[in-house]
Parts: sequence; structure tokens; C-alpha cells
Amino acid sequence: VVLLCAITKSQSNMEISELKEEFARNREAIISRWMDFLRIPSISAQPAHDKDCLNAANWLDSYLSSMGFAVELLGGTNRPVVFAQRMIPNRPTVLFYGHYDVQPEDPVELWDSPPFEPQIRGDRLYARGANDDKGHVMFVLAALEALIKNNQLNYSVKILIEGEEETGGKVIAAGLASWRDKVKADSVLVCDTMWVAPQLPTIVLGLKGIVACTVELSGLTKDLHSGLAGGLVKNPATELARLVATLHRPSGEIAIQGYYDEVVPIPADAREVMRNTPIDLRVVEQAVGVSLTGGEADKFTPLERLGFRPTVEVNGINSGYSGPGTKTIVPSKALLKLSCRLVPNQNPEKCMKLLQDHLQKYAPPEFKIEFSDIEIAGAAFSLSPSQPAISRASKTLAEVTGKPVIHSWQGGSIPIVPQLQQVSGGVPILAGFGLEQDNLHAPNESFSLTQFEYGFLFVGRLLST
Amino acid sequence: VVLLCAITKSQSNMEISELKEEFARNREAIISRWMDFLRIPSISAQPAHDKDCLNAANWLDSYLSSMGFAVELLGGTNRPVVFAQRMIPNRPTVLFYGHYDVQPEDPVELWDSPPFEPQIRGDRLYARGANDDKGHVMFVLAALEALIKNNQLNYSVKILIEGEEETGGKVIAAGLASWRDKVKADSVLVCDTMWVAPQLPTIVLGLKGIVACTVELSGLTKDLHSGLAGGLVKNPATELARLVATLHRPSGEIAIQGYYDEVVPIPADAREVMRNTPIDLRVVEQAVGVSLTGGEADKFTPLERLGFRPTVEVNGINSGYSGPGTKTIVPSKALLKLSCRLVPNQNPEKCMKLLQDHLQKYAPPEFKIEFSDIEIAGAAFSLSPSQPAISRASKTLAEVTGKPVIHSWQGGSIPIVPQLQQVSGGVPILAGFGLEQDNLHAPNESFSLTQFEYGFLFVGRLLST
Repeated sequence: VVLLCAITKSQSNMEISELKEEFARNREAIISRWMDFLRIPSISAQPAHDKDCLNAANWLDSYLSSMGFAVELLGGTNRPVVFAQRMIPNRPTVLFYGHYDVQPEDPVELWDSPPFEPQIRGDRLYARGANDDKGHVMFVLAALEALIKNNQLNYSVKILIEGEEETGGKVIAAGLASWRDKVKADSVLVCDTMWVAPQLPTIVLGLKGIVACTVELSGLTKDLHSGLAGGLVKNPATELARLVATLHRPSGEIAIQGYYDEVVPIPADAREVMRNTPIDLRVVEQAVGVSLTGGEADKFTPLERLGFRPTVEVNGINSGYSGPGTKTIVPSKALLKLSCRLVPNQNPEKCMKLLQDHLQKYAPPEFKIEFSDIEIAGAAFSLSPSQPAISRASKTLAEVTGKPVIHSWQGGSIPIVPQLQQVSGGVPILAGFGLEQDNLHAPNESFSLTQFEYGFLFVGRLLST
Repeated sequence: VVLLCAITKSQSNMEISELKEEFARNREAIISRWMDFLRIPSISAQPAHDKDCLNAANWLDSYLSSMGFAVELLGGTNRPVVFAQRMIPNRPTVLFYGHYDVQPEDPVELWDSPPFEPQIRGDRLYARGANDDKGHVMFVLAALEALIKNNQLNYSVKILIEGEEETGGKVIAAGLASWRDKVKADSVLVCDTMWVAPQLPTIVLGLKGIVACTVELSGLTKDLHSGLAGGLVKNPATELARLVATLHRPSGEIAIQGYYDEVVPIPADAREVMRNTPIDLRVVEQAVGVSLTGGEADKFTPLERLGFRPTVEVNGINSGYSGPGTKTIVPSKALLKLSCRLVPNQNPEKCMKLLQDHLQKYAPPEFKIEFSDIEIAGAAFSLSPSQPAISRASKTLAEVTGKPVIHSWQGGSIPIVPQLQQVSGGVPILAGFGLEQDNLHAPNESFSLTQFEYGFLFVGRLLST
């Protein structure tokens, strides 16, 4: 595998100043095209917008074709995956991954301007998808256009933009293995992440895997009168709570047998990086409202837990009556929604089985326990900060922003990334430019124009040197 | 206190056969009057029906006045308490308690005939309130009317019919102490309970007390992303479940310190009665859907737990997301609704304090714990089956039904009963004629005409001998 860092300086390349001039010259056209893309309400969660999703795919097709890419729509005609390539013989290949679908706009009454009529206010462009992910896609394509126009694109480029990221990405997950030859690459550029703080440009070196399920405990014929049945029968709500209480030890450790068997020690270099990461935990505590005493707080620092320790979280629990006043019932059943974040080397299928076995074992035999909505979304991945492709991307990011770059192992999950890594063979470079205040998935989503330009400069510099 | 059983046989009295003839002769008029009462939609939960509640009170006023009762409306003009008396010098006093308000009729579309247009089908009269409690009130008043007409009423009779039983009975609870002289009685007849099975006429000898509250655990600023916050902060849903799990030991015993301190041993005679009660527990298990392994199942029989062991029940628990699919959040807060059934000698205020202290002690210090909807509805009461007033009522019930009578200590609560016992000084006689299939509080409420006649005969016989 030829790594990005192995490129010699014999190539021509665009200096940051030249890229800045190029951006300034074309600013209006770039933003105007970005707005055109945002005007397409490509909401993948709503079948009424299937046509819009196809329109967004076709829009990308025509833009990419105009730049000289060979474009194919893969995976059927409904929310197809846009695949494009522009190969240069004997040059390493960068595979860019993004998505053209967006979240629904609800609640639409909380938007200050219509979600699909982009508007600039101050340094921000407001629209559904302004950041996630159309903003990221657009600075990548704008940078490619600039490099191609100036004959400075020094890499073979493949592009994979899916239309179902917000709804589980089933089409790309199902198709990827059969597109193995198409997507072969030396590195995978993913621009769909955030900086850990406004002044801290971030490259994400790890994400967790995720599995989830719904658990229902039932057996009573109906809600029973708490006077007539209380003390006679076990209470499904009480028993479900007792079951939840078996999942963790008082220390915060997960109590599921075998759950840590495959968890590997935190790599020394990652530990070192995290120790030196300038994140003010008091700011985090203020943002979340409580001190950071969750998980295995006695044994690991917050960043270590976030990046390298598995979790089992209750996402929801519901049983009986929760309205005002008193309703004296023994609820007939109780519902639990769980999700688990997994760390490198944990097998998602195995973890789901261990979880289910544990719940089955500790559930009271009087009740029926049923599992549904079982999701095995994907495994974790983790990279070393010393990998050459990471070093080079980090150096580039520091150059264009003028700031020190943070390496971050995060607790979230982008299940497609480890799959892309495995199928393409390329090193994932996760360099997004989002900020906390961008309101992803919420009303008044926006993207900073400054961050957008950083993204343009980063991609331009990365692919021209 | 002159007990009912102390009445000598020197009085004239109506034989059961005479009462049966009297009922047959007046059947049409009795049912017609009962239907008139049922046509008044006296729903206490809905302010739109305040006028109807007052109409029901006035209707009772005029009916009772026509029988020669001195009637007063107590506790204000909105859903007043109807108080009536007809005293006979030197005769013991029976205080009858009932209520004229009814439950809302929703969901009205599930009724086979309109809820306030009474209809007889087969042996049943269908209407909202047919049983609860207008049916019971009407056989009591019809029996009184028959005795008075035949000059066979041998007791001083006081009547207390409230209009807020279905909404907490605050007016009567607040006024009762100040009506102490008015309500003084030797026994309190309450007809608002059920037979334990269709062939088992029942006198209820005990009911539990009840306290309830809502608990909220909060502290996170909002629902957090389970990847970004999971393992960093404690999860309110998980912690609430762990808190619920501290309330009971694995044996089902309540684990709140001091909770059993005032609980007295089950009286030997009650134990004996329960041992011989011909209730088929397999039928109960079939009805509830599970085996009767709740509460302190290792130490006490189901009937013992039902009548004499306190409970702490989860009526509802709610946190986070419980819809379809997956929502990967750490919920910002978690809600719990608890109610406790208390047994004789437990002090409701003290039990509520012990519960709150326990929850406060075991709640994680990172979160705020708040209590609301605190209800201290009332204490338990329990009578001995050998009390003369109970013996006599039981004998009368056996005579009129031709069946052996069950003595039952139940897990439900009628908080006004121990208050009436305390203020009036009278022994409570809980002899209702409801059956499981009467659909109390549900669509198609009905009352068996056979049971109604049993009620008429029972009251007629009880108050004429």
C-alpha cells in the first residue's frame, strides 16, 4: 500500500496562499452551488422525498461528470449510492466517503428561516444539511474542482456518496463487499465529524462499534389493581429495574460475564496523546450538567473511557403509568431499550449474544422475555497517531488552520468506516469541520463559512502535495 | 357501645319470604327509580358535570325526605355530601356510607348501549354507576323504604352519601372531624365492595392503607448522545432502575429500614379463617397470567400477603425513548411512580418518610431527586371475624343468599372507612354485592339484578331484626 505520506515533493502543488486566492475568487460560485444542493430536500427517512433523494444523486452525477469523473449510480434507483472515479496512472488513490441525504426538518416551526431555503446570517449558512453532510461534501468537491482546473490534482480520486446515512445505510452496507474492486484505495477520507472545541482542529482516530436491542418483560394478562395483585405477583416494572441493576457493578464496570474478554489494553501511544489533550473537563461537566463519574471512573480517565472502554446504556425504559396523579396498578409489561458501544477487538455479534444471555439468565422465570429491534450496526476501529497517513493529514490540518491538531478517540459510531477500511484496504482519515453549535439533526442547522473554507484548504492541500 | 347483635328478639321483624314478596311487588318501581338515578351523569372528575352532581345530591335529598329522613347537604354546594338521619329513641344507630358520583364514561364508543341510558339485558342492568355505587345505594334505600312502609325499621339510621369518591373524597375527608356528633353510630354499613367469586358472598374484614408518590431523578442538561456521554456520566435511567432494585430483597421482602417495625403479627383467628377460605388459587393464577410468587412468597400464603403484608409497588417508570427502532441517548431524567399498601398499625406519614429517606439515601449524589404527587390517603383497618356485629351481618348474609359467607382481608384501600370507624365510633360492616364481571370503571358497567335483590334482602333483614 502506497501511503499518502510517501508522495515525494517532486510534484507541483498548490500553496495555501494560492488555495486561499482560488477560494476568494470563486467564493460566490461555490456558495451558490452549495445552496443549490441544499435546496433539494433529500430526506431519506420519508418516502415522500424519495424523488428528492434521486434528484440529489443526479445533481451530484452531473456536477462530478462536469469535472471529468466517471460516475455510476449503484444499489438500485431508490436513494442510490453515487460512485465516481478519476484515476491518474501510478498515483495513490484517495476514496472520499460522504452522504447526500439529510435529517427531517421537524419541528419546522422552530426554524428561523425555512430549512430548504439556505440563508447566510453572519459567518454561517443556515439550512438542513448545511453541515451534515452536504456542507462537507461541497467543500471536498469544490476543492477537487479547483485542483482539476489548475491541473494540480495529484491523486487518483474515488468518491462514494450514499443516500441513506441518516436511516441506517443498509444499501451501502449490503453492496460494499460486491464493490470491493471499485472501492480499492490507499486512504479513505471521511468528512462527517466535529472538532472537539472551536479552536481545536480534530482528526478522529477511533470510533466505537454499536449494537442495540429492545427488551420486553411480560406475562400479566393486563394491568392489575395494585391492591388486588400487589404482593401476590411479581411486578414487571420492578423486575425489569432489578434486571437493569444486574448489568453493572457499583463501580460502573459492566457485570455481563465475558464482556471484557476481548477488550485489549489501551495502547501506550494513545494513552500518552490523551494525557496531553488540552480539553477542559470542567467545560464538559458544565455542558452535561453533572460531574464525569459515569462508567469505570475509578480506573480510567474520562478520555480513556470515551475512547477505549465499552458501555451498556439504557436509552429508554417504560412501564405502566407516568402521567399526573396516582394510578395504582401493577403494570402488565415493561419495556427496555439498550445500546452498547463496543471497543476495538470486541465482536459485535458476540457482545449481543452475551448481553441477551445475561438478561435471559437473570430475568424472573415467571415472565416472558423477548428481544426485538436487534441491531448489530458494526465494530469499533482505532488508529495509531503515528501512522504515516495520519501524520501527514495532521500536518496539513495544522498548516491550514494555524492551530495544533487534536487526535481524538471518540465514543460515537460511524459503522460504515470500519467496513470501508476493511473492504477498500485504505487508512481512514476522519477530518470533519463541524462545531458543537452547528445544531446537527436539530432546527436551525448551520455551518460556519470559516470552517467551510478550512475544509476547502485542507482537501486542496492534501490532494495537491 | 350497643352492638347490633345485642338487639333482643322481642322486636317484630320481616322474614326473608316477606321481604322477597315485598321486592317482587315493587320490583318495577324500584328498578325504575334506580334508572332515574342512573340517568343523572354525575361524573365528579369533569367540572362540566358539576351541575349533574348537584342534581344527584338533590335527587337523593328529595327521595330521602319523602321517606321521612331529615336531610342536610354538607361541605358546600359543589358536589355536597348528602347527610340524612331518621332516629328512633333508644335504638342503636347504623350509619350507611355510599357515593353518588360516577367514573367518566370514556371510551364511550366501547359501550353497547349509552352509558347514561340504563338498559336491562338478561339478568343485568347496564349503565355507568349501575354497580359503583348507585346500584348499592339504591338497594339500601329501597330496603329502607320497604321497612319504613311496613313499620319494620328497628334502627336509627344515618346516611352519608358523598359526591367525590371517584376523585379522592377530599370534601368528606376534610369535613368528617367537624361532623363527629352528627355521624356518631354503632356500626357503619359500607356497600361498595365485591364478592371474591360469584358463589361466595363476602364480608370484607380488612383493607390496606395507601400512600403514593412520584420520584424524579434529574441533573443532565438534556438528553445526551450515548456515544459522546455514555461511560462519562451516570445514566439517570440506569440509576433509577438501580434505586428501584434497592427497595426489595431478592426474597421479595421490603428492604426499607424500619418499614416492618410497626407491622403486627397476623392474628391467629384471621390466619385460621384464611386457611379455610375456599378460594382456588389456580383460578386466580389463570386470571393474572402468572404464578403467585410475588411479595414474601417464602414466608406467607397468598391470602396472608394480600391481607396482612405491606407492599411497595412500581405503578410506572419512564425515561428516555420507548418508540420503535433505536435512539442512542443517555436520557436527561427518569420518572418513577410508586404506591405502598400499608397494613394495620403502620403509620402512613411515617411510612412515606421512611420511603423518601431510603430513596434519598441510595440515590446517586450526582443527580437531583425530587418527590411530587405525594398522597397520604389513609391507614389500614382490620376486624376480627368474632366481633359480634360481624357475626350477625355474616349470619344475615348467609341466610339471604343460602351460601356460606367468606371473610376476606383485602389488599385494596377505601381510605374513608378507617376514618369513618374512628370518627363515628362504629364497627365497619363491608358488605358489597359486586362481581368481577361488573366492569367497574370500564365500558359496559353493569350490575346483576339477582345481586341487587340479595342486597335488598340483606339490608332489609339486617335492619328489621
